[in-house]
Amino acid sequence: MSNLKGHLGIKDDAGTGGHLGTKDDAGTGYQGNFGFAYPPVPGRREARRLAHVAAERAEAEAGFVLLVESLNRVGLTTEVRGGDEDSLLVFVKIASRDLLAKQVYRARLQDWLCGVRTSGPEVDISRSLQEEPVTEAERLRLVHQLISRPLNEGGAGVSETSDKWKHVAAIFPLRDQPFNKAWIQKWSKKYLLDQEDIDEIRNKFGENVAFYFAFLRSYFFFLVIPSALGLTAWLLLGQFSFLYTLGCGLWSVVFFEYWKQKEVDLAVQWGVRGVSSIQQPRPEFKWEFEVEDAVTGEPRKVYPHTKRLRIQLLQIPFASACVLALGGLVVICNSLEIFINEVYTGPFKQYLAFLPTILLVVFTPTFSAVLTKAANALTDKENYETVDAYKAALVQKQFFLNFMTSYMALFFTAFVYLPFGHILLPLLNFWKQAAEVVTFSEKALPTKEFQINARRISGQMFYLTVTAQIVNFATEVIVPYVTRKASSKAKEFQAKKTPRVQDAAEEAEFLKRVRDECELEVYDVTGDYREMVMQYGYLSLFSVAWPLAACCFLVNNWVELRSDALKIAISCKRPIPWRSDSIGPWLPAIGFLSWLGSITSSAVVYLCSGSQGGDRPALSHLTAWGLLLNIMMAEHFYLLVQLAVRSVMSKMESPGLQRERRERYLMKKRLLQKNLDGDGGESMLAAGVSSTDKLMPAALDDDARQASIQGHGSAEESCVSDGSSTNALMADRPGRFWRRQRGAQDTIETGRRLMQQGAAEAPRKQAAAAPSPRA
Amino acid sequence: MSNLKGHLGIKDDAGTGGHLGTKDDAGTGYQGNFGFAYPPVPGRREARRLAHVAAERAEAEAGFVLLVESLNRVGLTTEVRGGDEDSLLVFVKIASRDLLAKQVYRARLQDWLCGVRTSGPEVDISRSLQEEPVTEAERLRLVHQLISRPLNEGGAGVSETSDKWKHVAAIFPLRDQPFNKAWIQKWSKKYLLDQEDIDEIRNKFGENVAFYFAFLRSYFFFLVIPSALGLTAWLLLGQFSFLYTLGCGLWSVVFFEYWKQKEVDLAVQWGVRGVSSIQQPRPEFKWEFEVEDAVTGEPRKVYPHTKRLRIQLLQIPFASACVLALGGLVVICNSLEIFINEVYTGPFKQYLAFLPTILLVVFTPTFSAVLTKAANALTDKENYETVDAYKAALVQKQFFLNFMTSYMALFFTAFVYLPFGHILLPLLNFWKQAAEVVTFSEKALPTKEFQINARRISGQMFYLTVTAQIVNFATEVIVPYVTRKASSKAKEFQAKKTPRVQDAAEEAEFLKRVRDECELEVYDVTGDYREMVMQYGYLSLFSVAWPLAACCFLVNNWVELRSDALKIAISCKRPIPWRSDSIGPWLPAIGFLSWLGSITSSAVVYLCSGSQGGDRPALSHLTAWGLLLNIMMAEHFYLLVQLAVRSVMSKMESPGLQRERRERYLMKKRLLQKNLDGDGGESMLAAGVSSTDKLMPAALDDDARQASIQGHGSAEESCVSDGSSTNALMADRPGRFWRRQRGAQDTIETGRRLMQQGAAEAPRKQAAAAPSPRA
Repeated sequence: MSNLKGHLGIKDDAGTGGHLGTKDDAGTGYQGNFGFAYPPVPGRREARRLAHVAAERAEAEAGFVLLVESLNRVGLTTEVRGGDEDSLLVFVKIASRDLLAKQVYRARLQDWLCGVRTSGPEVDISRSLQEEPVTEAERLRLVHQLISRPLNEGGAGVSETSDKWKHVAAIFPLRDQPFNKAWIQKWSKKYLLDQEDIDEIRNKFGENVAFYFAFLRSYFFFLVIPSALGLTAWLLLGQFSFLYTLGCGLWSVVFFEYWKQKEVDLAVQWGVRGVSSIQQPRPEFKWEFEVEDAVTGEPRKVYPHTKRLRIQLLQIPFASACVLALGGLVVICNSLEIFINEVYTGPFKQYLAFLPTILLVVFTPTFSAVLTKAANALTDKENYETVDAYKAALVQKQFFLNFMTSYMALFFTAFVYLPFGHILLPLLNFWKQAAEVVTFSEKALPTKEFQINARRISGQMFYLTVTAQIVNFATEVIVPYVTRKASSKAKEFQAKKTPRVQDAAEEAEFLKRVRDECELEVYDVTGDYREMVMQYGYLSLFSVAWPLAACCFLVNNWVELRSDALKIAISCKRPIPWRSDSIGPWLPAIGFLSWLGSITSSAVVYLCSGSQGGDRPALSHLTAWGLLLNIMMAEHFYLLVQLAVRSVMSKMESPGLQRERRERYLMKKRLLQKNLDGDGGESMLAAGVSSTDKLMPAALDDDARQASIQGHGSAEESCVSDGSSTNALMADRPGRFWRRQRGAQDTIETGRRLMQQGAAEAPRKQAAAAPSPRA
Repeated sequence: MSNLKGHLGIKDDAGTGGHLGTKDDAGTGYQGNFGFAYPPVPGRREARRLAHVAAERAEAEAGFVLLVESLNRVGLTTEVRGGDEDSLLVFVKIASRDLLAKQVYRARLQDWLCGVRTSGPEVDISRSLQEEPVTEAERLRLVHQLISRPLNEGGAGVSETSDKWKHVAAIFPLRDQPFNKAWIQKWSKKYLLDQEDIDEIRNKFGENVAFYFAFLRSYFFFLVIPSALGLTAWLLLGQFSFLYTLGCGLWSVVFFEYWKQKEVDLAVQWGVRGVSSIQQPRPEFKWEFEVEDAVTGEPRKVYPHTKRLRIQLLQIPFASACVLALGGLVVICNSLEIFINEVYTGPFKQYLAFLPTILLVVFTPTFSAVLTKAANALTDKENYETVDAYKAALVQKQFFLNFMTSYMALFFTAFVYLPFGHILLPLLNFWKQAAEVVTFSEKALPTKEFQINARRISGQMFYLTVTAQIVNFATEVIVPYVTRKASSKAKEFQAKKTPRVQDAAEEAEFLKRVRDECELEVYDVTGDYREMVMQYGYLSLFSVAWPLAACCFLVNNWVELRSDALKIAISCKRPIPWRSDSIGPWLPAIGFLSWLGSITSSAVVYLCSGSQGGDRPALSHLTAWGLLLNIMMAEHFYLLVQLAVRSVMSKMESPGLQRERRERYLMKKRLLQKNLDGDGGESMLAAGVSSTDKLMPAALDDDARQASIQGHGSAEESCVSDGSSTNALMADRPGRFWRRQRGAQDTIETGRRLMQQGAAEAPRKQAAAAPSPRA
């Protein structure tokens, strides 16, 4: 990326010039950390297991030896230190700057081969690195690939998940503490983030993380529009405003299409466009046979599609289970809540009101956890070939689960409670009877008549957007921070009691920090994406019920951007800087929510718009065909607008794509000029006809000579034969036809003569056809 | 296209080897024909205009001289002969086979630059031509480009439409009579066409025409399924069958997606993928300013988007006019027909029944012609930059017009007459009163009660699919054939009366054929596409009303394939072999009809399914919400199936795309091997780590030496400072940290020691934490 040159090149760090950074070899290093858990010597009671444990210890030791040897074999220098308790820390850095340069060059060549990079390979390695300096993310990624790639691809083949390396607890890059500090400080002072901030993330943490922040930033800026709309609607039009729905729908189409283009732009700018097609093989993939890859000709491992499909069909019972468990929970808790809040008038009402909430809070996570486990197991079973396919399949299932847990209550209110409230009566009666049975009361419980409350949906929206976001922020940022502080205090306390192997004084601080880092969780960007996509769903599906939602989201996301950065900087391990060229499976999820939003919003407006003033919706004027017509019109309006926006967008070529095309074009042109000498190359492209081609009397003479040699003097008889052979004559043999007029001048003369003949003939013909009146 | 080698290479024709065909120079020629109309000498009565006519004749002569000179300048040999009446025939062929070779090579290089060809430029021209021989279509296209390209792009700049060349009547390649004969004979003997037949068309008439035949062939084969479905439905289920609609909808999705893939496949196979992005500039384009092209850096002519948009807005009144004129006509004629056929019972009923048909037959073409002219004028006004954009815009308007004329009557019947027949009553009464007024009858006309006839839609379908196709076939093939025969007889007769400039005996037959060809119409593939797409529309939209439609279409298309070939071979000028990489704007048209079909079919089924037995639909059970629900479900089912089919299709990578990717990959690999010497290149890709990189004690020693030189002995104090500077130390300077353990063996030793220390400590810790029970 030549545009990054100047603030990231190693040369600038060193300040002394040279071709790859001069003094800081560690600048090319990778401080990875291998937590190596080895089993403790057993207590006396476990004497029986002694032999087994000894064997395991020997195994761990052998594993450690193998690890260090493997790492050294691929050119990584290692250092070992004691870790917490029963573990070792293995530090790794790339052995020489030459090796790094070669690795970078090789990786870039590979990218070019796979069509990710447009610019071709520079023969001189050092010049190529100078033109496009190595970012920290690229370096860390390459070193991680050196560690984790299989042996036959030139890596050490070390992975946390494989059985062979079961003693390897974790592989992760170390934090850049000064950068993190500066980063957090910088962001805490800024109101708005700009593209440079995102580029910085990309250079430090890789494109995978950077795409999340880029998405969040774009989404944040775009949220200003529905916020303004929502505020206006709330102030002037109230809830359930048709205009707000219209505006919000338009906004969602534009945002979706904008992001699709922005994504491509960013991918081109970061040089990762097409990276998703370089599939990272999944180590857990089990293959059944090998075929030759149709593109590269190399052997490719295959698992039969039909077998996978058979497993994938299990998604149907899985989905049914989700609907049954989570949907049932929602129906039960909501109807119970309706019963307690709106029908029941007896004692303890204020306490009983908490019951359904408690049920929901207890059972939703429980069910979710079980179903998430099932989703993971199912996805594992589906045995995907690549990491991306696996992730996409998992994200799909998670999205479905989240969709159920997040929106089911609102769907219930919007499409069951509001329009068909009376069908809940049996359920309410059931609760009443159940309550009577439970309380052994002989007389009927005190109740009032059930009335549908149209404000219910707004209340739910308020709860879900404000309360839930605050709770979420707390559980995501504050709780981990506190628990981590507490646990590290506890550990410090413990460590003081039984001091471990003494660190060298100069390293003590550093090693302590590394040991702390080992304790942290792995950062998973999926969770953050999920949160944003679910939020987008609330906005798109139900914000018409509470138009201020967008404003809340705007505030939330301002905090979210910073708290996510904080999470990466403080409460998680530094993520491995993987590349990606889009937000992946979340893009279709957003598209789906936008589309569904056009339906639900219009339906909610239709069902509730009459109820604005009073508590009770004016259901009398509602008809089924009105609702269906409303939905149909809204959906088709949405699709039409989408079509229009797409066609407009496709006309405005994105700067990224344009740049890519230009690079490709220039690269080819350069290549052409290099390959072709001055004679045949450039001049060929410029004009096409050289002066020697112009009239070619020589060529014509050639024909004549050839004809005379081959004796075509007798061409006449074939000429006077039938049309087809005449044509064959014209096509195949340069007979007399082409030799009647020699050169342009001759043709012109003949043409002139023909014209004059024709002119002379014309009056004759005219005279013959119609005798002149004077004759 | 190396797969075409062997039956098309010039070498094989010549049989004697050599590098570009040996004896047949005309094989590289292009027999173009320029009809040059020059004004006749005036009759005596027009003496006043004499001066003007003389000036015009001089102008024509000057134009002719300029033409011949321009053609010769770009390397084309010319011959002139007398044409019919007031015209000249100018024959053109490329001057030398070297020039042709250079032109071919240059064109292929350009293609590669624009990303159409995957294989890079071969330095040796003759070898490149040998590897991929020139097809006739390619040769003719290049010669045509030589003639028609602007001067600054190396062409002669001759075009029929420009004012400068107003005396040029037509530019066209001559027919290959023997091929045409053989072709028609071959096809007349074949029941089914195969891919080779399509490839042959591509080699002779170019990809643009070949795509039409390929589409028609695929469509023909696919029609077997709905034919079978329709026949079964007709025999077993009757009309308005839900199952048939379902099957037909599924079929249309699969066909559409199949063709999209097939199209790409063919484009790759024919080497034209991406050709549509090489925009052919429209000579009539009027530009306002120039900008630099973002990709190539060359100047590009621009017409502001906003101005065009302003003109495009005129499409709204245009569409309204279409709806009003054609829709009104349909409503009037249909209601009149209903009145006469189903209400009126008076005298002359059998004759009056023809009245609405006559009205339709007279006014529909009239209105269409006027509106088509308006569409042309509007599209001209829209001033598109490229031929493709212009064509697409024109096709869109034509499609709309055709949609109105073809389907309006059916829409009227399906969605007005059948469900809301009673709203026609005022209209019928109007006709009754009008008839009473016209006939001056004092007593009321004899009528019967109006009853809705559910079979009406089937009758219309039958008329439109069977009768109309037969009439169409007649007007398309038989009428032109007969008129041409008649007119050529008449001309022969006339020519005999006043013989023209005498042809040389050997050329007489050939020239006569060329003169006949001048009379023929230009072949326009658009018309043929339109016919097929409209047919597809009948099938998709309304075939549920008459399931045998697909069978009829199957038969019709068997004939159509052959009659279209006949049309090209006999009754049209040979088309200029333009390239294209898809069926262009017709693809979205088909997609639109498929989608609309899902709606109309389900609606027709819902509205009419009760009426199967009797004449009168059982309208009582129909409800608006039922209809809407039906439509919604059908549409979403359609969209869902489309999604599913697309995702399945996208997994099965098409052979064409695969081949393209492989070619691109291999090309790059070749390039790489050429550019990089053995040392850095191939070995780099293969393994990545050379033996010198493995342990690098030298590099470590280097570090040590460097450290001693720069005096890093005092690293301790920075090490014991705060964490951040420790990290800086680790990252920036190879301090003591990395020099504690020298090499892998040292690391292993240290690690082992640490493990043993930890193991020794463990029991101690355990003892401290929990004293043994025996203690």
